[in-house]
Amino acid sequence: MKTKQIVLASRPSGTPELSNFNTKEITLPELKEGEILLKGLFYSVDPYMRGKMNDKKSYTPPFKLDEPIDGGVVAEVVESKSGKFGKGDVVMGQLPWQELIITAEKGLKKIDANIAPASYYLGILGMPGLTAYIGFTEIGKPKAGETVVVSGAAGAVGTVVGQIAKLKGCKVIGIAGTDEKIAVMKEKFGYDEGINYKSTKDMNKAIQEHCPDGVDIYFDNVGGEVSDAVMSNLNFHARVPVCGQISLYNSKEVETGPRLQPILVTKSVLMQGFIVSNYQSLFEESSKQMAEWVKEGKLQSTETIIEGFDKLPEALLGLFKGDNTGKMIVKA
Amino acid sequence: MKTKQIVLASRPSGTPELSNFNTKEITLPELKEGEILLKGLFYSVDPYMRGKMNDKKSYTPPFKLDEPIDGGVVAEVVESKSGKFGKGDVVMGQLPWQELIITAEKGLKKIDANIAPASYYLGILGMPGLTAYIGFTEIGKPKAGETVVVSGAAGAVGTVVGQIAKLKGCKVIGIAGTDEKIAVMKEKFGYDEGINYKSTKDMNKAIQEHCPDGVDIYFDNVGGEVSDAVMSNLNFHARVPVCGQISLYNSKEVETGPRLQPILVTKSVLMQGFIVSNYQSLFEESSKQMAEWVKEGKLQSTETIIEGFDKLPEALLGLFKGDNTGKMIVKA
Repeated sequence: MKTKQIVLASRPSGTPELSNFNTKEITLPELKEGEILLKGLFYSVDPYMRGKMNDKKSYTPPFKLDEPIDGGVVAEVVESKSGKFGKGDVVMGQLPWQELIITAEKGLKKIDANIAPASYYLGILGMPGLTAYIGFTEIGKPKAGETVVVSGAAGAVGTVVGQIAKLKGCKVIGIAGTDEKIAVMKEKFGYDEGINYKSTKDMNKAIQEHCPDGVDIYFDNVGGEVSDAVMSNLNFHARVPVCGQISLYNSKEVETGPRLQPILVTKSVLMQGFIVSNYQSLFEESSKQMAEWVKEGKLQSTETIIEGFDKLPEALLGLFKGDNTGKMIVKA
Repeated sequence: MKTKQIVLASRPSGTPELSNFNTKEITLPELKEGEILLKGLFYSVDPYMRGKMNDKKSYTPPFKLDEPIDGGVVAEVVESKSGKFGKGDVVMGQLPWQELIITAEKGLKKIDANIAPASYYLGILGMPGLTAYIGFTEIGKPKAGETVVVSGAAGAVGTVVGQIAKLKGCKVIGIAGTDEKIAVMKEKFGYDEGINYKSTKDMNKAIQEHCPDGVDIYFDNVGGEVSDAVMSNLNFHARVPVCGQISLYNSKEVETGPRLQPILVTKSVLMQGFIVSNYQSLFEESSKQMAEWVKEGKLQSTETIIEGFDKLPEALLGLFKGDNTGKMIVKA
């Protein structure tokens, strides 16, 4: 049986291009005892994938050249030689970018379609949702009445952080790159205010205006000058979960900016970089809470769904241009 | 009765100069019920005082123009109308830079000269010692076998951090500005290695050489390029208590440097700016532990003592030139 896979053809220097990817046709081997044949339904593209395109050890090993990219995938069981999963089951796992996938049971999780659409398990009920919940509550430690600023506020993580902040009784200001995104953030996700960093000339002034009491929690998804402006307006004892730095992922050189330590010292600020996998012990409880909120309608989700397996590289590159509102997903 | 006091004559722009201070002769009023007349014995000069010379709210209010500087002072009771303190008692408190001081009981603490010399209560048994102990243990959370780097390692806080790190079973590398300081750090305070940042051309390489397993805790007293080099060599899950930024205190403009957030994200690093007064609830227990270690000879102290009340401004300015090894104190 033949299938298509998307491999890393070359490592990008700076912003990745379509030429860094290649589509191959491969022949799948016979299914062995304990294995499952899957057909991919939804494929996740995430900012962290940019780091794995470099040949540099980060918190996860890099993608290998000429081997398929892998990421979060929701798939349907086509054939099963496993006692755990049967034909027609919908599962998710960390899987290669292939239309058909042969895999072992390990790491696969059956999805409960009663709670939410299957694609949600790549977003609000998956890694981005957990990242938002755990990063915001464990590091941010929100208290009702506090002022929260979220950068990348219209993204997969940002849309969830904003909603949780509202559930915790905070005032929430989101930063994003288009007026359309800001409208969605305010209308659908309950953000109190939005700042379009592309059309705002003086970000520092904008933060001051929208946060007259200063900033207690800054949930940072983007870095760069947007973050400089927020960092200058932190309150004493502010907390800064550093979740991502999408503005810098394609930088070829080390970027410079205002030194942060003087702010940290004079304001007793906490900054904590994190990846959600540091908090495995909280996954079960946190997933349960998120599923409950989704079921109760307290958390909304938005997805940007691109149709066609072949569009995976394009969708990934789109993240760095801000093409998505909410979770970016490719539907096969 | 007349006495001398040292006041802030003008606010410095950049590095402070002697002309920013003025010595005045004042007449003391009659001692009232509940008050004490003190004669200053030892006066503390500390890096944080630079911030209070600016007309800008930081974590403590600024010094007022034409009013005496205040700081940690060890003094002897000359006359007492308080039931709590008697003539001859040695006390310490946050007091004005005056040779003779009239004060209320509040905030004064009697000193136990059996444990250590009185001047120690301005250093290892006072605020700098508590800063070192609490910042290193509460934020640094040291584990035996970890690699610790301390900047400002020969200073009042740094000399204590290094010794506590050794007591906790860590490998400790100190950064200071002269070979003499490094010799003291290694011989008297047990530092495993020292790096002279003034004579070292490639700090990044020096850190790599001395920390082949990477840096688990960076106790930052200085900031600037010294910190850049250490930050580039942090391990996954490293902790960075940000205690001071003496290299930047006299900057007139916002200094720039390599952005830190990418390091924080890829290595899941914690940075926490702090001042010791955030941890009041730990003072009693921590002071007891420090006193015990000093009594048992497990903690050593070094002081740079300048003689003469009039030398206070000079001693303070000397901190920014690195004139001190250990705690800088003026003896009246």
